[in-house]
Amino acid sequence: MRTVNVDLGERSYPIYIGSGLLSHIGQYFKDHGISLNSPLMIVTDDHVAPHYLTLLEKLLLEAGYDTVSKVVKAGETSKSLSVLEEVMTTAIEGKLDRNSTVIALGGGVVGDLAGFAAATYMRGIKFVQIPTTILAHDSSVGGKVAVNHPLAKNMIGAFHQPEMVLYDLDTLQTLPPRDVASGLSEMVKHGLIRDGDFARWCREHASELLALDPEALEYGLALGCSIKADVVSRDERENDLRAILNLGHTIGHAIEAVAGYGEYMHGEAIAIGMAGSARLAVRLGRDASIYDETVSMLQSLRLPVTMSSHLSTDDIMDAMKHDKKFREGHMLFIIPDSIGSVSIVKDIPEQLVRETIDQLREGGETHV
Amino acid sequence: MRTVNVDLGERSYPIYIGSGLLSHIGQYFKDHGISLNSPLMIVTDDHVAPHYLTLLEKLLLEAGYDTVSKVVKAGETSKSLSVLEEVMTTAIEGKLDRNSTVIALGGGVVGDLAGFAAATYMRGIKFVQIPTTILAHDSSVGGKVAVNHPLAKNMIGAFHQPEMVLYDLDTLQTLPPRDVASGLSEMVKHGLIRDGDFARWCREHASELLALDPEALEYGLALGCSIKADVVSRDERENDLRAILNLGHTIGHAIEAVAGYGEYMHGEAIAIGMAGSARLAVRLGRDASIYDETVSMLQSLRLPVTMSSHLSTDDIMDAMKHDKKFREGHMLFIIPDSIGSVSIVKDIPEQLVRETIDQLREGGETHV
Repeated sequence: MRTVNVDLGERSYPIYIGSGLLSHIGQYFKDHGISLNSPLMIVTDDHVAPHYLTLLEKLLLEAGYDTVSKVVKAGETSKSLSVLEEVMTTAIEGKLDRNSTVIALGGGVVGDLAGFAAATYMRGIKFVQIPTTILAHDSSVGGKVAVNHPLAKNMIGAFHQPEMVLYDLDTLQTLPPRDVASGLSEMVKHGLIRDGDFARWCREHASELLALDPEALEYGLALGCSIKADVVSRDERENDLRAILNLGHTIGHAIEAVAGYGEYMHGEAIAIGMAGSARLAVRLGRDASIYDETVSMLQSLRLPVTMSSHLSTDDIMDAMKHDKKFREGHMLFIIPDSIGSVSIVKDIPEQLVRETIDQLREGGETHV
Repeated sequence: MRTVNVDLGERSYPIYIGSGLLSHIGQYFKDHGISLNSPLMIVTDDHVAPHYLTLLEKLLLEAGYDTVSKVVKAGETSKSLSVLEEVMTTAIEGKLDRNSTVIALGGGVVGDLAGFAAATYMRGIKFVQIPTTILAHDSSVGGKVAVNHPLAKNMIGAFHQPEMVLYDLDTLQTLPPRDVASGLSEMVKHGLIRDGDFARWCREHASELLALDPEALEYGLALGCSIKADVVSRDERENDLRAILNLGHTIGHAIEAVAGYGEYMHGEAIAIGMAGSARLAVRLGRDASIYDETVSMLQSLRLPVTMSSHLSTDDIMDAMKHDKKFREGHMLFIIPDSIGSVSIVKDIPEQLVRETIDQLREGGETHV
């Protein structure tokens, strides 16, 4: 078992990563001062619930906790204000009070939705994350929680740090292969922005990671979480440095928005976005090997590096302009300087971005 | 012109109170570092918009600001997640970015809705309050923002402090008399909890206050804001002391919920609630004059002290149990010890609360 501490002053919290953690959940909760006198709410989705909800309820009941549960439909469409209202209904009917805790049992969607519910229920109550995907190693660090607006992703949200994250690797064993690869996309991203050796380690251990080898997973998740925790602890509210975590996200979010949430998994869309950022880097004069290495790393993890030909460049450009990273009229991109290091670059000529999007289309040019 | 400072460390902000402030809004915005490079969004309602929206847009345009505006229906029903989504649509289409500011032009409903939009748009942007009601002197201090859930008021919200509050007394001159009295209910409440002399001043100057005399208003609003600011600065997130601001609110919120938002104005409902708290105080052994004085103060401001006979005690008891102040299974009330001083009392016997609610009904007993 490994523990990664996210250092945020009085909002600091630990991420426990290992196998078999869930069976000790009562002890973890008591050690973290989760009150036995106020009901807990578990939020999960209909893919995760059949595997782990009954178990979690039983473990918490045995530890003396009262719980209510809300199961939402799996997928990005549950990150909406209307589903949030349903979650709040469960909380109110379950008589959650200001000392209650919301538990997110699931992946990034459940974490974002449950976290935003915790951030806003009675103006903010406690929150614990139990991630059941690899992708959630990213979203469980840093306290960003949100729901989507029909016009743009993650537009309505808050910063709300959990009390702790319980990452039980056993819950990853039921993940479909596409979810595994999508999660590894954020893992290799953490290497690409701050730690080239870790990015190369991901490529070298791609087959173990894709096969959910517990040792490789524990190491990779702990290192990915550590890198993110380090960045977040230096800039909790994304005034500057934290923006580097958005490598691949400007293009990736736009692809998700234009394709309609669902066609691409988040990690797939940002893999394409990272390939795009690497193309932009080379076009801006960085070494051509950046693109080749990035693509080889992504492909080793069975991630896409081009997008479907039906997506139009105009639509993607338009979606990018709605992005939160479009600040005061400037287009902002995270651009690799080498494998393991990136810069925040403003004011990239729009034409260059357009051409790069064109090249990302399947059947487009395969070289920069 | 008077300035009240709300002292909250790096989240401190001033409340400017006086006549003719709006015409200097450009200067106030520049002094507070509101960026000229990012669009502003004005949120207001269809009662306030005809009086002041065009003027405010013109003044901001002259000062060099781009604005978009969202006009919502006046009244509590606009404090919903679906109206919040509409406000967010205006913000996104208006290309508000992370450096943008939301302006709440209106009363408590607009302040709560616009403030929650500012708290959650892109996980939080700046917020300026321009209150146009007396009631808003209360809601504009302390950063509590929220929308309602169909099952309970203010259930979904945040703490989000404004950059400043611009209280232009000229905008109060168009208030209907019932709104004036409702606003004065929170003003006298601030006296009742912390400053008996101020509560008595409110009674003595009731006719000037009801007639919107500028001098009386400026003094009363500044003192009301100061009392609230002092309480909030000692306990921003309502861990203990801040709860005293809820005098009359446990019963008042329940009356609003059971009557359906709309039958009672907020200030009227909490006036009935304050009469109820005074009754409880006497039943718990405090001096009988507390009830008589409280009622005479409320009545001098033309506020109700009894509720409509069609409201059932069972329904009100039930609604109170959904209240945020119902913590860990205990019923919590703010009880006056004298005029100008209150205690937070837990575990009042339910039967005593029931009897008090019964007595609040019109035609019920007029003495404690």
